[in-house]
Amino acid sequence: MADDFLQKIAELQKRLDGQLKNYPFPQQPEYLYDPLRYVLAGSAKRLRPVLLTLTGQAFGVDEDDLQHAALAVELLHNFTLVHDDIMDDDLLRHGQPTVQKKWDNATAILAGDGLFVEAQRAITRVRNNAQRVYTVFNDGALAVCVGQAYDKEYEENQTITLNDYLHMTEKKTGAMLSLCMEIPALLANQEEAVCSQLRKFGYDIGKGFQIQDDILEIFSDADKMGKSLGSDVIAEKQTALSLMARKMAPEQLSELWQRSGEQPIDEKLAAMRTFFEDTGVYAETIAMAEEYFNNAVEDLAVIPDPCREVLVAFINFVKSRNY
Amino acid sequence: MADDFLQKIAELQKRLDGQLKNYPFPQQPEYLYDPLRYVLAGSAKRLRPVLLTLTGQAFGVDEDDLQHAALAVELLHNFTLVHDDIMDDDLLRHGQPTVQKKWDNATAILAGDGLFVEAQRAITRVRNNAQRVYTVFNDGALAVCVGQAYDKEYEENQTITLNDYLHMTEKKTGAMLSLCMEIPALLANQEEAVCSQLRKFGYDIGKGFQIQDDILEIFSDADKMGKSLGSDVIAEKQTALSLMARKMAPEQLSELWQRSGEQPIDEKLAAMRTFFEDTGVYAETIAMAEEYFNNAVEDLAVIPDPCREVLVAFINFVKSRNY
Repeated sequence: MADDFLQKIAELQKRLDGQLKNYPFPQQPEYLYDPLRYVLAGSAKRLRPVLLTLTGQAFGVDEDDLQHAALAVELLHNFTLVHDDIMDDDLLRHGQPTVQKKWDNATAILAGDGLFVEAQRAITRVRNNAQRVYTVFNDGALAVCVGQAYDKEYEENQTITLNDYLHMTEKKTGAMLSLCMEIPALLANQEEAVCSQLRKFGYDIGKGFQIQDDILEIFSDADKMGKSLGSDVIAEKQTALSLMARKMAPEQLSELWQRSGEQPIDEKLAAMRTFFEDTGVYAETIAMAEEYFNNAVEDLAVIPDPCREVLVAFINFVKSRNY
Repeated sequence: MADDFLQKIAELQKRLDGQLKNYPFPQQPEYLYDPLRYVLAGSAKRLRPVLLTLTGQAFGVDEDDLQHAALAVELLHNFTLVHDDIMDDDLLRHGQPTVQKKWDNATAILAGDGLFVEAQRAITRVRNNAQRVYTVFNDGALAVCVGQAYDKEYEENQTITLNDYLHMTEKKTGAMLSLCMEIPALLANQEEAVCSQLRKFGYDIGKGFQIQDDILEIFSDADKMGKSLGSDVIAEKQTALSLMARKMAPEQLSELWQRSGEQPIDEKLAAMRTFFEDTGVYAETIAMAEEYFNNAVEDLAVIPDPCREVLVAFINFVKSRNY
């Protein structure tokens, strides 16, 4: 049974990935559209449009509306990635050089803008409950910008707590996943109580996902991950692991930073892994992610049976990723 | 009578400027909202929301809808300015340092994104004919990105013609001015024939405006202009003047580029002024702008009397600017 669900998810991933890789952009101007085609050609998991589609199917949403909304959230997500990669000076994304690395900053800025406009154009093709859908979509887009702003503010602030980080994550990662739940609910004219619970699902799975992402950044395999590893921690950005360490073992953490300051990146990464494991920070952080994923399962109570099960399978699918 | 119109335009400018300078952004996060407040505090002429409001009043559009749409186009316009200034490495805008100059690139990228999201949030507050309005708004936003892409493509292409330039201008400058006409028409449920003529007005006044902008870049006074002068021509970007010169006096233009290559910027600017005047390029370019402004007056035939007159006054107001 679980295999059936995984197969359904895999089929959806494949279909959505195909649609995004063949998105009907014009040929000209190449300065705009070549980078857009390039971004969508990367090897991405399409988790957001898969989630949105599964939820929409549970509520019996019109297929065309669902399709437009699914593409809109993935385009919106890719807009944020392209601009965040410039802002964070990241060089690798979805297994290929970032847009500003392959071209330059100007090209990448416009590529992000283009993806954002195309996301808007996709969502405005939705017909049912349209005004509410557009409003929620853009409130979500704003939350992502707010989250990114906090992330940047926090970079140079060594007094940030785990709670601050979770609040930031709710905006930066959770808001987009909330969109994947609330928009299909709105397309099915669900009432506010349902929408509100589904937003909570987005925040919960978003926190689980982001905490897990921070862990994978340190403990995964760079080739699989398709982006540079350890860059956040090495830039001393706030991550779930470093903030948990600041809470559980602050002195040892300071020592580690000092000791590893001049080390080559591989040694630094290895030293951090050992430190996080030995201090129990790794186990505690894993447990925190697990708790958010469990909350997300409970939030699914508002999804009608039997469709709930495939969403539970989706959570397990996300949880079990190792890149 | 003309004075009455000018007073009405000045009052509208003042009201809209006040609303934009006091836009109800939250305080936090400052990383996002401080630059947004800063951008809107610059000394801008608010031509686009003024035009949109005058047109909406001519069609008797609901005041709230008109207000949301007016703010939306100015926010959209400012989004494009902030990102274009990064892409073009411009240091001065609306009489103050650009966002990336005052802060940095990352801050400016996010500020542009924030302005774009706020533009979307403003336009989704419109009630009448909403879906059509959002669609047209985002088609316009896409055209601006397409225009910017052509502008960047053309930078390093010395085979561009005046026609290519006019096509690019239609997208980069005209599309946003078309929005200012078509959106109020849609808010008043006008039919496609009217909308189409109003879009043409946008393209015509856009071309007149952009050609004039290129002229002012060389022949105006830097303090008044509130942005760096001559930067486009000195970077050998395509402008109406340089393309007219390539058509009318190609050999003398090449000579000028070679001769002025190493000159200080002031001397270079003076040499260009003399060249454009002596070859008749200046007069011919002025005449071309004039023709587009005249076309724009004719396009106004679809605006009901007596409101048409204030829009004619608006064109004259734009034409007579000297910065």
